[in-house]
Amino acid sequence: MRKQWGGRRNHIMGFSSRQTVIVGLGLMGGSLALALRPYVEVLVAVDPDPVSREAALARRMVDEATDDLRAAVQAADTVILCAPVRVILSLVRDKIGSWMRSNTLLIDIGSTKQDICEAMGKLPIGIQAVGGHPMTGKEVSGLDAADPFLYANRPWVLCPTRRTTPAARGRALALLESVGALPVEMEAVRHDKVVAAISHLPYLLSASLVATVRRFSENDPGVWDLAAGGFRDTSRLAGQDIKMMSDILSTNTQAVATLLAMFRVQLALLETMLISHDETQLVDALTPIRQARTDWFTHYERRTNSNGKH
Amino acid sequence: MRKQWGGRRNHIMGFSSRQTVIVGLGLMGGSLALALRPYVEVLVAVDPDPVSREAALARRMVDEATDDLRAAVQAADTVILCAPVRVILSLVRDKIGSWMRSNTLLIDIGSTKQDICEAMGKLPIGIQAVGGHPMTGKEVSGLDAADPFLYANRPWVLCPTRRTTPAARGRALALLESVGALPVEMEAVRHDKVVAAISHLPYLLSASLVATVRRFSENDPGVWDLAAGGFRDTSRLAGQDIKMMSDILSTNTQAVATLLAMFRVQLALLETMLISHDETQLVDALTPIRQARTDWFTHYERRTNSNGKH
Repeated sequence: MRKQWGGRRNHIMGFSSRQTVIVGLGLMGGSLALALRPYVEVLVAVDPDPVSREAALARRMVDEATDDLRAAVQAADTVILCAPVRVILSLVRDKIGSWMRSNTLLIDIGSTKQDICEAMGKLPIGIQAVGGHPMTGKEVSGLDAADPFLYANRPWVLCPTRRTTPAARGRALALLESVGALPVEMEAVRHDKVVAAISHLPYLLSASLVATVRRFSENDPGVWDLAAGGFRDTSRLAGQDIKMMSDILSTNTQAVATLLAMFRVQLALLETMLISHDETQLVDALTPIRQARTDWFTHYERRTNSNGKH
Repeated sequence: MRKQWGGRRNHIMGFSSRQTVIVGLGLMGGSLALALRPYVEVLVAVDPDPVSREAALARRMVDEATDDLRAAVQAADTVILCAPVRVILSLVRDKIGSWMRSNTLLIDIGSTKQDICEAMGKLPIGIQAVGGHPMTGKEVSGLDAADPFLYANRPWVLCPTRRTTPAARGRALALLESVGALPVEMEAVRHDKVVAAISHLPYLLSASLVATVRRFSENDPGVWDLAAGGFRDTSRLAGQDIKMMSDILSTNTQAVATLLAMFRVQLALLETMLISHDETQLVDALTPIRQARTDWFTHYERRTNSNGKH
């Protein structure tokens, strides 16, 4: 699945842009501005919040900052949408297509891809639209946390749309290479299932666990005092930003519901063995699970520690 | 619930022992040996494994190491059972009671307490038996990882048994104080429910999550390549030692089944809101969950960083 372009890097035309517009000055947009700076003649940020705009200008992250989306994208050859999924969706559906020039590259960083890629497919012919999802982030959000290496050596999923020409794909790959990301190309439907499994399901489990302990604590508040490292890790995702998560979950309902159904089966299997005191079966069931986790973790550590090797 | 004895420490008679026997030379027993060394005239380890015994002697962790449980406990005034739950159970049920002298303190470190405390309650009158569960550990196990500060500033649950006289309780508290642990006293039934909520339920969720992704990967092996930090934390417990976990789960079936039922309700509530696209309700439900996690984490960080303040 992974296509790492290191070996072929000479065959990708380097990314360059006369005017790149980044829509949304949060952690992701700000980090992209810092990372893309060397490759772009004029870097323009669009954000409705004057405080963010002023901060980006004061830190010289961008050349211009405006709330006039139309004027900005009219002059752009590259537009990157760095906003929550449904903001991206409304931008793609309602406005941007008619304002952009032909041959402009449009890419986004939304966490779910099916709706966005479908909307991109309906843009005017000539717009070079590619769906994107960089698999990176930080515990903290906002422009202040922006980091030029946020994307380095992290997977960045690219999903084709009906407006993804070979040229569009090439420019998107070049953009990813310029920020050090590892391109992973897959269909939007498949992407949404994968992230439901590794990200949205874990979030719902984490939140439901905290909800359970919270309910338990109504009878025994002392439970919080004994919770330690195991609970800390399993519950961490429940602390994620709720607006962001509800935005993501609501645009991936079907895949999430499917994964929840699969999860219930697995949990019920373990529970059955436990309740029936069938311990041999329980150990037999847990053994490949533990092995899968250990194998993945070894692979993950190797992957995340292999800086500069993409 | 927490009784921290710092303020009253002068009222606890300091721990001292002529002969302390530690049964089981793993991480927990080895660490206890290192921590108790200054308080004990003769420290004896009992372990069936000659390699562990020789290692403990070579490192001067104990004065004697033997596989003769009977001879060791006959001469002891303090016996600490540092073994898996069901090994502890069989020791308490089958043998140790008739061998120990009257007034010997018997304490254990088993992860579930109801069965053990019940068995301790049937020991001959005169045995001073107290159930124990230190809430500490390491990623690695075994004698090589032994650490004299493993118990310092970590909660150590004490559960009364029918053989817990006021003197037994006082000696157990003194023992805990000598290794720097924070005593938390509660009934065994309550303990087992609490650990089902904060430890056994999270383990089963973690294992079921990995089982789900494993099943998913049969159709799409690429899922492993995109799993990152969120999956890493939520799945960590699935990597725990299976023998240990099946031992723990099998001696806490009822509490675990209750918590699983509570969990299913909470998960179903979130799923209903998600599938019905009732986003206001979803956000309203997730808000106090996130708050509970944030509040707990602040409290937890303060607690675990307050070294030397117990």
